[in-house]
Amino acid sequence: MSILVVGSVALDSIETPFGKREEILGGSATFFSVAASFFDKVDIIATVGEDFPDKYIKLLVGRGIGTRGLVVKEGKTFRWEGKYKYDLNVAHTLATHLNVFKDFSPKIPEDLRGSEFVFLANIDPDLQNRVLSQVSKPKLIACDSMNHWITNKRRSLEKFLHKVDIFLLNDSEARQLSGESNLIKAAKSIVSKGPKAVVIKKGEHGVLYYSRGAHFLAPAYPLDNVYDPTGAGDTFAGGMIGYLSKAGKLDNASIRKSIIYGSILASFAVEDFSINKLLKISMGDISKRYNKLREMTEF
Amino acid sequence: MSILVVGSVALDSIETPFGKREEILGGSATFFSVAASFFDKVDIIATVGEDFPDKYIKLLVGRGIGTRGLVVKEGKTFRWEGKYKYDLNVAHTLATHLNVFKDFSPKIPEDLRGSEFVFLANIDPDLQNRVLSQVSKPKLIACDSMNHWITNKRRSLEKFLHKVDIFLLNDSEARQLSGESNLIKAAKSIVSKGPKAVVIKKGEHGVLYYSRGAHFLAPAYPLDNVYDPTGAGDTFAGGMIGYLSKAGKLDNASIRKSIIYGSILASFAVEDFSINKLLKISMGDISKRYNKLREMTEF
Repeated sequence: MSILVVGSVALDSIETPFGKREEILGGSATFFSVAASFFDKVDIIATVGEDFPDKYIKLLVGRGIGTRGLVVKEGKTFRWEGKYKYDLNVAHTLATHLNVFKDFSPKIPEDLRGSEFVFLANIDPDLQNRVLSQVSKPKLIACDSMNHWITNKRRSLEKFLHKVDIFLLNDSEARQLSGESNLIKAAKSIVSKGPKAVVIKKGEHGVLYYSRGAHFLAPAYPLDNVYDPTGAGDTFAGGMIGYLSKAGKLDNASIRKSIIYGSILASFAVEDFSINKLLKISMGDISKRYNKLREMTEF
Repeated sequence: MSILVVGSVALDSIETPFGKREEILGGSATFFSVAASFFDKVDIIATVGEDFPDKYIKLLVGRGIGTRGLVVKEGKTFRWEGKYKYDLNVAHTLATHLNVFKDFSPKIPEDLRGSEFVFLANIDPDLQNRVLSQVSKPKLIACDSMNHWITNKRRSLEKFLHKVDIFLLNDSEARQLSGESNLIKAAKSIVSKGPKAVVIKKGEHGVLYYSRGAHFLAPAYPLDNVYDPTGAGDTFAGGMIGYLSKAGKLDNASIRKSIIYGSILASFAVEDFSINKLLKISMGDISKRYNKLREMTEF
């Protein structure tokens, strides 16, 4: 099948306890598309500035990722500067320069409007809504969001969620959106707001999938070393949606497998800066961790 | 087989956001033995004061729990007063009155020295060591500890751990003991200190079992409502050791099942104050949750 991701392509400057990198490839659409590209064809809808390094576009193209929807605009590329201290679960934003991303209002190329799997990464819910109106009856609509939109655009977000099949967010966002500290209650409450299912990402504690009909508790792949958690959530989404697109079905067993693939992809992503580790692994490495995780959780 | 637990029997006064109870039955040996009694014969080694309500002893005896090692001493019973705020993971101790527990130095009755499964609940590691010298070649020795002993009796604890098969502790204690914030590294480091295996209890995030040969990631049973987390860890241990004693074997599959049974028992324990919920459930209720948890985690 075919996947469309709408989100950001950015240049990140990141400091963690393990090192520092300047202007490395980042952005939600980047992590998502690289992860999804292990499974199926994916097209990016995003915008970058004229300063965006050509080598990065070549890198994406080299992985078979469609970049026709990656528009180069006059101005500078979106930049994010962040720092992680020893608690790698918390990103401290040092600076955000939206640049060309500020006026991001994508037009989806005609021939991509029939994409069957659509992922709307974390952007303004009004924009997510406008983008969605351009695609025709996808098989699956998934989206992400963040605390900023829950605080400032709650009404738009809640309205938009009625159109969504799978809503991905992290545990603190789930608590914020639902007003429930208990995550099971939070998941129930969110599903009652519209999306068919919710995926609550708990970082090293795994994932809770909750739909009206089925619940799934997925562990995270245990890691000795986490170098840079940036992009873990979008990589998870890319692995998940990528697998579902390849499988071409949305039954309970496929959903579960897709969540585990998402977790495995994320476990690789955080082992190096940017998408570096993802570029080094093969489908064989992914399968190995998949089987190992199954072995470590069976009872 | 036969189980021996050495620990506390106490009267707790507890306040949570959901209610308040005075002088209810508590203590590590209480929670452990009631949980273990679902599976096998268990004997308590503990001490209480003359003020200890007879009804509680009858209650334990009524469940087939051996109380010959529960010594009534002149003085008052150990009392703990605690409070939980909305973050139920953190217990705030308001008062601890050790009373007769202060001079707890148990002598194990002759006929219990051959017990095959021994659990040394959280007490001074020197005392754990002295108690252990009284039993003869158990099939399994498990123990718990706490931050207080890690801080104040680290050397005794580390020496004692060499004699232990399974060491149970919570995540913050594991980090403190090992000096590692990453739990996989912490588990490795702890196992290198002596115990054959470590069980790191992560509350709502489940359990990490780590031995030299095998790792197991167990989810916690998801709960809508947690009323009082007091005793969850000891209930977990009771379910785990209880199942192992009943199974009579310590292979990898049995260890995994025992950890899930421990989690299930703990999930019931926290749904009411004291052992109230544990007294209301049947083996059928336990099996139902066991199967449901398997269903929710399979992929």
